[in-house]
Amino acid sequence: MAAPINLDPVFHPASVAVVGASASFAKWGQMVFSNIVAGRFNGRIFPVNPREEVVFGLPAYRRIQDVPESVDLAVICTPAEAVLDVLGGCGEKGVKAVVVITSGFSETGEAGRVLERRMVHLCRERGILLVGPNTMGILCTHSGLFATGTHTRPRKGKVAFVSQSGNLGNQLIHWAERQNVGVSLFVGSGNEAMVTSPDYLEYLAQDRETRIIILYLENMVQGRRFFDVAKRVAAVKPVILLKGGRTEAGRTASASHTGAMGGNLALFRSACRQAGILEVNVPSELLDLSAGFSSLPLPRGNRVGIVTLGGGWGVVTADECNERGLLVPHPPDRIVEAIGRHLPPFWSRGNPVDLVGTLDPDAPLVAVEELLKWEGVDAVISLGVVGRLELFRLLARSTKEVDDTKPAGFLDAMEAMVREYEETYVARMAELMEIYEKPVLGVSLTRTEEGTVRPVAGRRYDGVFYQTPETAVNALAMMYRYQRSVQSSV
Amino acid sequence: MAAPINLDPVFHPASVAVVGASASFAKWGQMVFSNIVAGRFNGRIFPVNPREEVVFGLPAYRRIQDVPESVDLAVICTPAEAVLDVLGGCGEKGVKAVVVITSGFSETGEAGRVLERRMVHLCRERGILLVGPNTMGILCTHSGLFATGTHTRPRKGKVAFVSQSGNLGNQLIHWAERQNVGVSLFVGSGNEAMVTSPDYLEYLAQDRETRIIILYLENMVQGRRFFDVAKRVAAVKPVILLKGGRTEAGRTASASHTGAMGGNLALFRSACRQAGILEVNVPSELLDLSAGFSSLPLPRGNRVGIVTLGGGWGVVTADECNERGLLVPHPPDRIVEAIGRHLPPFWSRGNPVDLVGTLDPDAPLVAVEELLKWEGVDAVISLGVVGRLELFRLLARSTKEVDDTKPAGFLDAMEAMVREYEETYVARMAELMEIYEKPVLGVSLTRTEEGTVRPVAGRRYDGVFYQTPETAVNALAMMYRYQRSVQSSV
Repeated sequence: MAAPINLDPVFHPASVAVVGASASFAKWGQMVFSNIVAGRFNGRIFPVNPREEVVFGLPAYRRIQDVPESVDLAVICTPAEAVLDVLGGCGEKGVKAVVVITSGFSETGEAGRVLERRMVHLCRERGILLVGPNTMGILCTHSGLFATGTHTRPRKGKVAFVSQSGNLGNQLIHWAERQNVGVSLFVGSGNEAMVTSPDYLEYLAQDRETRIIILYLENMVQGRRFFDVAKRVAAVKPVILLKGGRTEAGRTASASHTGAMGGNLALFRSACRQAGILEVNVPSELLDLSAGFSSLPLPRGNRVGIVTLGGGWGVVTADECNERGLLVPHPPDRIVEAIGRHLPPFWSRGNPVDLVGTLDPDAPLVAVEELLKWEGVDAVISLGVVGRLELFRLLARSTKEVDDTKPAGFLDAMEAMVREYEETYVARMAELMEIYEKPVLGVSLTRTEEGTVRPVAGRRYDGVFYQTPETAVNALAMMYRYQRSVQSSV
Repeated sequence: MAAPINLDPVFHPASVAVVGASASFAKWGQMVFSNIVAGRFNGRIFPVNPREEVVFGLPAYRRIQDVPESVDLAVICTPAEAVLDVLGGCGEKGVKAVVVITSGFSETGEAGRVLERRMVHLCRERGILLVGPNTMGILCTHSGLFATGTHTRPRKGKVAFVSQSGNLGNQLIHWAERQNVGVSLFVGSGNEAMVTSPDYLEYLAQDRETRIIILYLENMVQGRRFFDVAKRVAAVKPVILLKGGRTEAGRTASASHTGAMGGNLALFRSACRQAGILEVNVPSELLDLSAGFSSLPLPRGNRVGIVTLGGGWGVVTADECNERGLLVPHPPDRIVEAIGRHLPPFWSRGNPVDLVGTLDPDAPLVAVEELLKWEGVDAVISLGVVGRLELFRLLARSTKEVDDTKPAGFLDAMEAMVREYEETYVARMAELMEIYEKPVLGVSLTRTEEGTVRPVAGRRYDGVFYQTPETAVNALAMMYRYQRSVQSSV
């Protein structure tokens, strides 16, 4: 078995040149270059463009060979017909890796395939790593390198994204930023002319920053090797995959997009299962699972405690659990008694624990902890506590409108209290997860400003608050599935 | 067959009294009363509370009998033990309908059941319509009556919501407001002690403002009658149902919540199918379908054209279509030629139409219209055109940061152009739907400020832009299913 390709020159270069860097608004060379500069890459940056003197305050060079210092990574945004020349220059310069943004290669037909083969040949000859072509770029939060056309910069974190579709991948990263999911790196792998998905997998397996691997693939390049590598990687890090082109319509679409060829879906699914890959159906699941896997401990079993503000939400969550193979066991009397001390006498006395609109601020905390303590439960889903702030604000706004008897500041103070309570609650959930090593999945029931993940400083785990119960249940079911597959492979 | 119960006194009262109206912040009597006042109900409003002189500037009355004018509707927020007395007063006063917010009735056990029976008996005797008890209120946008504890006020529209769970129902209405779904009315039907779900269905069938009916039910009160009524109603208006308590865990949860009894799921599902009810699995689907059904024409078949900014999104959308029984047919040469005139030579030349990042502003419009014109397509899904604004803003922000050569106002003008293009696009989609009587479902691929539904003044249909492809495909698949069931029942 050959050693994995070392992709550090791609993700952790000391210096980056952008060939085709430009100040012309919304051109690829402008979008990528302005993103690297505005993203505050912590190495040297060199614009290369024969028609410019200076781009964004940095001196521009006619050719990459003219750059006075060494260049680790070149991002190439020139037209397809110029790429071979540029690569020749990169070879002369001793560039270690290139990201070829340019499209117009194997995805467009025979002429493009020939050009792509020549490009790969040239790169191999010169010892240059080739990412792409036909990619929308790469980013690495830990090196501060944002070399994509989409100016979205997620926070540093543990989730790596590999996507053969640049557009889809970039949007996923945008969602990650919105949901506050921490990202280690992203690569639009494009046509994978030289560096392929199994190469990325091997690199990510040993990348210390990466703990969860997310893949969007249409074309299973080196299929056999892919599943071999994935099996080894999945035993140490969750590998979550969306396969584009599962159906006839999807394959037809994919053929014209990345030149991918179809295969047998049943065979593919069974290969995923055997390799321990978690396969999902839609892009949003990739993000939902990123949030859970990166922020929560894994459940050791499939028994769920539910704490809810609102009986109906408890019912639909219990339904979702059962339909996804999760159990909602009835707690023993001592647990019921302990929780009941904080609730009105007519409470549900079971699981789900319906908080029946109690105003006792300890009730939600006690209910979650009592369930976590119980050896009969492997995870808790908490609905509607975090997220109340939004509805509170609506009530406060109306009250201000109609009630002129309240002292100034009363409602603002109340709102601050609700906000603080939410913050305390999030922090306490992180603490409880550390104590009991069981996941607590929050459901906000509304879109919150904070996003899905709520980081808690100094804690091993973060708060996770999904918008809907089904998202939380899906994440939990997949975490349980992963835990089981790792256990059985040990 | 008895005439349907006329629920106008509930939803269109000329005057409303709130018994228990209070200025004590966050009490039920405060939340409901302040909502009615701040919501600008366009009839008379009377607070009733023996311990208050004035509430929110309105004179309060000791008892409902003391109100000097006639009262159509009384909303009751007093403790359970006081409700019978209050209802006696309502009878004396000639109140036509009551909404009993108060809980502590049949959902809490035998004593509560007895109390509930006495309440119903008293109401029947006095000819009072009883909504609830154990409800979180009602609202009707067309009469401007917002009598719920949650201060969310969706815009006027066609969708009616009936929910046995108040919390879940209120959150749905909150989502409706956020997604810009037009609502006719909402009722938390609670324990349905007198007015039951089939009664609401019958009323809504003939309510001219309501065109789509959304139900969340745990307890199938009068099951046989429900399906009989639903069958008649579903032939004229879509009836979309989420049943809570489908699984053992859900039923257990539900029993303690609304006192619902379980049943056989397979039987239930077959009854839904026979009645033409559209059954969904999770609450968010209720909202997603509301948006589509209320704003778009129904597809006459299952053949879909896809127009996408980004090949990957086209692939996953085509996959979702096929997996939901929708076809993605290949267009004839003349359509390919017509679209191709606006795209670079290496475009996909098929369906999905990948716009391959073209900057020709006519390309997306031409592609959608050419597909709509074609008799081989029944609906179009358009991905990524509306929603670009958000990513554009990120690019503009970076550019401002790094580029001091652009004249002031250049980027703002560009942003205004992108925004105007989106508005033009939405308006054009509404126009095209009217011309071709086929639905166009937009997918924004990002969370937009505008919400899912984008109303277009003076048009029969509105723009609908879902955040994810799977949501659009699910809505389209359900609209197709409804269309088929209506055709087959004719």
